[in-house]
Amino acid sequence: MSERVVLAFSGGLDTSVAIPFLAEKMDAEVIAVAVDLGQGGEDMEVIQKRAIDCGAVESVVVDAKEEFAADFCVPALQANALYMDRYPLLSSLSRPLIVKHLVAAAKQFGGTTVSHGCTGKGNDQVRFEAGLAALAPELKVVAPARDYAWTRDKAIAFAEEKGLPIETTKKNPYSIDQNLWGRAIETGFLEDIWNGPTEDIFAYTADPAQPREADEVVITFRQGVPVALDGRALTPFQIIDELNRRAGAQGVGRIDMVEDRLVGIKSREVYEAPGAIALITAHMELENVTVERDLARFKRGVDQRWSELVYDGLWFSPLKDALDTFIADAQKYVSGDIRMTLHGGRAVVTGRRSEESLYDFSLATYDTGDTFDQSLAKGFVQLWSLPSKIAAARDARHG
Amino acid sequence: MSERVVLAFSGGLDTSVAIPFLAEKMDAEVIAVAVDLGQGGEDMEVIQKRAIDCGAVESVVVDAKEEFAADFCVPALQANALYMDRYPLLSSLSRPLIVKHLVAAAKQFGGTTVSHGCTGKGNDQVRFEAGLAALAPELKVVAPARDYAWTRDKAIAFAEEKGLPIETTKKNPYSIDQNLWGRAIETGFLEDIWNGPTEDIFAYTADPAQPREADEVVITFRQGVPVALDGRALTPFQIIDELNRRAGAQGVGRIDMVEDRLVGIKSREVYEAPGAIALITAHMELENVTVERDLARFKRGVDQRWSELVYDGLWFSPLKDALDTFIADAQKYVSGDIRMTLHGGRAVVTGRRSEESLYDFSLATYDTGDTFDQSLAKGFVQLWSLPSKIAAARDARHG
Amino acid sequence: MSERVVLAFSGGLDTSVAIPFLAEKMDAEVIAVAVDLGQGGEDMEVIQKRAIDCGAVESVVVDAKEEFAADFCVPALQANALYMDRYPLLSSLSRPLIVKHLVAAAKQFGGTTVSHGCTGKGNDQVRFEAGLAALAPELKVVAPARDYAWTRDKAIAFAEEKGLPIETTKKNPYSIDQNLWGRAIETGFLEDIWNGPTEDIFAYTADPAQPREADEVVITFRQGVPVALDGRALTPFQIIDELNRRAGAQGVGRIDMVEDRLVGIKSREVYEAPGAIALITAHMELENVTVERDLARFKRGVDQRWSELVYDGLWFSPLKDALDTFIADAQKYVSGDIRMTLHGGRAVVTGRRSEESLYDFSLATYDTGDTFDQSLAKGFVQLWSLPSKIAAARDARHG
Amino acid sequence: MSERVVLAFSGGLDTSVAIPFLAEKMDAEVIAVAVDLGQGGEDMEVIQKRAIDCGAVESVVVDAKEEFAADFCVPALQANALYMDRYPLLSSLSRPLIVKHLVAAAKQFGGTTVSHGCTGKGNDQVRFEAGLAALAPELKVVAPARDYAWTRDKAIAFAEEKGLPIETTKKNPYSIDQNLWGRAIETGFLEDIWNGPTEDIFAYTADPAQPREADEVVITFRQGVPVALDGRALTPFQIIDELNRRAGAQGVGRIDMVEDRLVGIKSREVYEAPGAIALITAHMELENVTVERDLARFKRGVDQRWSELVYDGLWFSPLKDALDTFIADAQKYVSGDIRMTLHGGRAVVTGRRSEESLYDFSLATYDTGDTFDQSLAKGFVQLWSLPSKIAAARDARHG
Repeated sequence: MSERVVLAFSGGLDTSVAIPFLAEKMDAEVIAVAVDLGQGGEDMEVIQKRAIDCGAVESVVVDAKEEFAADFCVPALQANALYMDRYPLLSSLSRPLIVKHLVAAAKQFGGTTVSHGCTGKGNDQVRFEAGLAALAPELKVVAPARDYAWTRDKAIAFAEEKGLPIETTKKNPYSIDQNLWGRAIETGFLEDIWNGPTEDIFAYTADPAQPREADEVVITFRQGVPVALDGRALTPFQIIDELNRRAGAQGVGRIDMVEDRLVGIKSREVYEAPGAIALITAHMELENVTVERDLARFKRGVDQRWSELVYDGLWFSPLKDALDTFIADAQKYVSGDIRMTLHGGRAVVTGRRSEESLYDFSLATYDTGDTFDQSLAKGFVQLWSLPSKIAAARDARHG
Repeated sequence: MSERVVLAFSGGLDTSVAIPFLAEKMDAEVIAVAVDLGQGGEDMEVIQKRAIDCGAVESVVVDAKEEFAADFCVPALQANALYMDRYPLLSSLSRPLIVKHLVAAAKQFGGTTVSHGCTGKGNDQVRFEAGLAALAPELKVVAPARDYAWTRDKAIAFAEEKGLPIETTKKNPYSIDQNLWGRAIETGFLEDIWNGPTEDIFAYTADPAQPREADEVVITFRQGVPVALDGRALTPFQIIDELNRRAGAQGVGRIDMVEDRLVGIKSREVYEAPGAIALITAHMELENVTVERDLARFKRGVDQRWSELVYDGLWFSPLKDALDTFIADAQKYVSGDIRMTLHGGRAVVTGRRSEESLYDFSLATYDTGDTFDQSLAKGFVQLWSLPSKIAAARDARHG
Repeated sequence: MSERVVLAFSGGLDTSVAIPFLAEKMDAEVIAVAVDLGQGGEDMEVIQKRAIDCGAVESVVVDAKEEFAADFCVPALQANALYMDRYPLLSSLSRPLIVKHLVAAAKQFGGTTVSHGCTGKGNDQVRFEAGLAALAPELKVVAPARDYAWTRDKAIAFAEEKGLPIETTKKNPYSIDQNLWGRAIETGFLEDIWNGPTEDIFAYTADPAQPREADEVVITFRQGVPVALDGRALTPFQIIDELNRRAGAQGVGRIDMVEDRLVGIKSREVYEAPGAIALITAHMELENVTVERDLARFKRGVDQRWSELVYDGLWFSPLKDALDTFIADAQKYVSGDIRMTLHGGRAVVTGRRSEESLYDFSLATYDTGDTFDQSLAKGFVQLWSLPSKIAAARDARHG
Repeated sequence: MSERVVLAFSGGLDTSVAIPFLAEKMDAEVIAVAVDLGQGGEDMEVIQKRAIDCGAVESVVVDAKEEFAADFCVPALQANALYMDRYPLLSSLSRPLIVKHLVAAAKQFGGTTVSHGCTGKGNDQVRFEAGLAALAPELKVVAPARDYAWTRDKAIAFAEEKGLPIETTKKNPYSIDQNLWGRAIETGFLEDIWNGPTEDIFAYTADPAQPREADEVVITFRQGVPVALDGRALTPFQIIDELNRRAGAQGVGRIDMVEDRLVGIKSREVYEAPGAIALITAHMELENVTVERDLARFKRGVDQRWSELVYDGLWFSPLKDALDTFIADAQKYVSGDIRMTLHGGRAVVTGRRSEESLYDFSLATYDTGDTFDQSLAKGFVQLWSLPSKIAAARDARHG
């Protein structure tokens, strides 16, 4: 029996052509696995059929939308995960989940090798292979673009030679990755970092500069998990999906940045993540209300490290697990409502209320009802500044 | 000779009434010191005269606008200083500079006590007194609001009794602090954190929701210092001032948050800081282009600690000094141009160019000219993920 | 009915005299609470009776030795808790446990005020009162030494005047605090930091310079908890107690340092903690064997922050709780044996074995059996150093 | 003209045989560069001659002892550099300096390739090649052991075949690296981590268990640099060298640990670093006396990151440079004397004095002369614990 290769299958040109290419090159049977992460676009049944038409011996479609939302997007939200303070990690989050389903398919269908379409200069190869090393170290990996220098031009020629049922004429100048948590656009004229993005590259967001009516939404969280919109109880998937539409219609969540890749180079990236940005903005403010100061300060460093780890492909790693327990503990009281206005590319918090609030009107107010004992402050200030004071006196003596 | 008290003087009701109050209460002569930090509002000569009219024996006005911009705002910009990821530290930056000039006045006029108008539940008392402890530990401090429970109502009654030349009828329901780096609004109906801000509380920014023409600006930095706008060489003060107007006209830089005060309570704060937010946004992106990855990652923690220290009143402290040297070193190559669109409350970077750029087109591109050797990636990925792989195999054995 | 004051009672002069002093000063009934933390010294029954003899209406003795070991010393061990890399936090650990039992006694006996013997310049007042603020904010606190400037001389005079059954002649020039986790010695001639300690101040440790036979011990850990010595299953209390004796007999665990107190001053402290130091040394090495690299690196920062928080009196705080979950997760695989030699003041690890080890002989060896694929290294090294390389080329161009 | 290869030459078997091997394999001329880092052992002239005898066209010897001490060991001392809290980085420090001299020789003699003897599973290959990537990216690198699978057995056969003037019979079962800052021993029976080290593997340190007279030394620092021993002004090299002898004679500085290598595996390492450990111990205590608390706390994280970076081969990197400026600033007042007793494997601080001390007797003492105002403490304690108190009340309500 020939070897079986489990291929991460998107339905696009590259992975479609990879099916006969791998079969021929490795003398193998190919099992295509397509994972629905809420990316929209083509019908999953069409994609499933295309794999068979291209020669796959099995074609699996996994509906992982709710799983992706609950187990990957929500933890990122709880970590306020913005790599380099900007990028909400959309591709970084999807790869470990795809790996999980590739491994499951390899077990089910007797696969011994896994294949993905990533190049050797991007981050996603690391996320795929670090995930596989953790979940199924016994599986081999082949990445045609990297390992066989397989390019789009070669793929088109190969597709035409083999008469594959794939449209090969349309050339999208950009490289796109998209899922429920957002959409990434790179390459093409964006590689000149002095060029601004043009309207045509965006798909999740309307032009924020166009005048339109504002939209107001109340997001309810229970222990750091979004559980309702405007009072309607919804799943995390439904909430992100609805906010993608509502915040996207207001142009919220466009990001344009130069980013540090794990492989050591800087790249230009454009993202649109309307739901993610709206939710993270709301969640951060609810943390401001419900999380104690020292915990909040330390959590910023935890959040940053979590984001770097996940960006760097280490979703399945001991440090990620330990940071998760910290973050989960910090979410115990992150419950309540955030009211936001979505408008003109902005998601602006206008109100917050929580039964677990640490904001204490009677301590904060300067009006009637003030219970803060100001006489305590003098001693506090003096001991607080004592180390600097002693050091300054020393410096004055010796400086 | 009676004691001389150096008073931080704003020209407003509270510090105006404090002049005769302190003179009477402490049997002292009062020296009023007003510092121009670009806060706008009343003419400084009017303020100077008012202090004399209220009984000050000396009334000093210091034009510290350029000093504030160059020595306080620019370091904050280089630290991308946003306390709790949001607040650009405007009051926190001004207090140490005011302290410096109070100390100078105390030396010049023989003052032995310094006085400020802060309450005992805010942060500013700490910034004043920690600064004084460092710069002039021999000076005593008196804070009437805190130490004598001196309230606005008492001040108004006192002013009317003494016939002071102060308007006491107008009651602003908010507490305002403003300078070149921004404007803070608190108290009043904002103390109910479910209430959104109303348009009337803003003064530095127009309503971002109003339709208007976008403004495009090119900001030039030299080693982390803004040096030009649209090619016109300007001082830091001039740049911040012009961006306050241009970004403010587009509604950029409104912030509404619940904040952790040093004295241990949470408070609701609204800010507007159009120039600061535009500059920090631009500076962060220029760092993305010119600062190496490991340095950029570590600098995030340094920036956070810097912001906390300055917020917490420790501008004059050994750790602040050491962090400054780190940040200064990290700015060595932060030079170049950032093009931004200011519009609809957003300051969006659309282009960046720098002779010190670490973005390397030939390494980043997927087109002709690619010099990145993808064959290096396989070994990298495998050793990068080796520790997680070994741990995962152990966990599988023992989990 | 008069007020009831719950007093943290050590049995020594100060707290004995405090009983009638508080009763008189506050017109109150005093409930004495003595907590056995393995400090040795006087019999707890003697101490209990003394409180009654001094006028307490109730005298409670709590045997908290096992609780202290399991719930306070073991977490400190898992955090490798050494404040300033040296001090194993012995007093810092005991105060929150004493607070817990004071609060329990207050509930049981209707106490409304709690009293402790700490001064206003030490750390322990903070640990008592921060603990009380968290556990029982409704209780008032009185600290005679701080709040009434109650000194030892006054206490002796008072005791003699009242004819209290206390020996008042013996004057120990040092201030001592001791429990299962170690012993602290301060003040006296040690306040001159150029003076070395003399042999007579030590009680838990023999002179390490005296020749004697070495002692070898094998310590077994299960998930970060010490569970056996030399193969004998024991409780944490029994293990610490036995190691105090065995490591103490070899002079292990003396510490002499200048320390940063929370109240802002530096102080000279001498400690002896034979069991704690032996256990922390063993635990750190077992972590080296069983904890993955990235987790180990991040945990160093977590351990430091944990130590600072506990030193600073914030045992009962949200950040401490969240750090605890991180540390607990990191202990999942910290199981195995550490063999140590105790001798001449040194506790030296000579062997480690663990079924959860991440040390892989076949990857590490340079001999037969090597399975490490060296060909992977070249790509790794080049991408690892690529960011520095690009930056160095830039610097060479511009430097 | 044939290519010229610059070889890092130790004088030992492997690099001696590498001369004719590289000449033959690469059809190249070999330039041998031996760097004296205070490693002792063979005379450098003998080493120099051996390279010529083995066929090198040039043989360079560099006396870098003072440079190594001043520019590499002293910065490590100022960072209290102990990787994983234990390892003083001795090999990690030497590689960047060797690289510097290899690059200089390549420039002088027209070398286009650099060669080193490291394997593909150790850290040193990274340190060599990351250093070269930064200093001279145009040079190629060849590592025979890694790139040609060149083993010791092959080298011996080759040497015998070519009749090289090298002793090939003696087989040291350990792999040794040594320089002024210490000595590393690995492999052999130490690869079984349950085995303790035997006395015969040590060369810098006497058996600490042997009875002998204690040695007392006073080390003087000026701004973090050791400048005198017992009052005699000396260079850093002289100080480290003398302390290696004196502390080594007392058995100070033995380390035995399992260590996380950069290439992703754990390895067993034994070190002896008597001078380094004595100096770091002294320096840490002088920092305790002279460095302000907040700065000291943050510096711990900086020191850790510095150690990791240098261990990981990134001596020449932007983050290392920026950390250096932080550390340098923190050393401004680290001046004074530390008295230590060296005995029985321990280097124990017994006294410290400094004109820049922040220890203030009048604030610290409990005796006559106390100037600390204890009344300040009550307010301090209450505001210090206020956030935890508010959170605890919330938790009680909702827990």
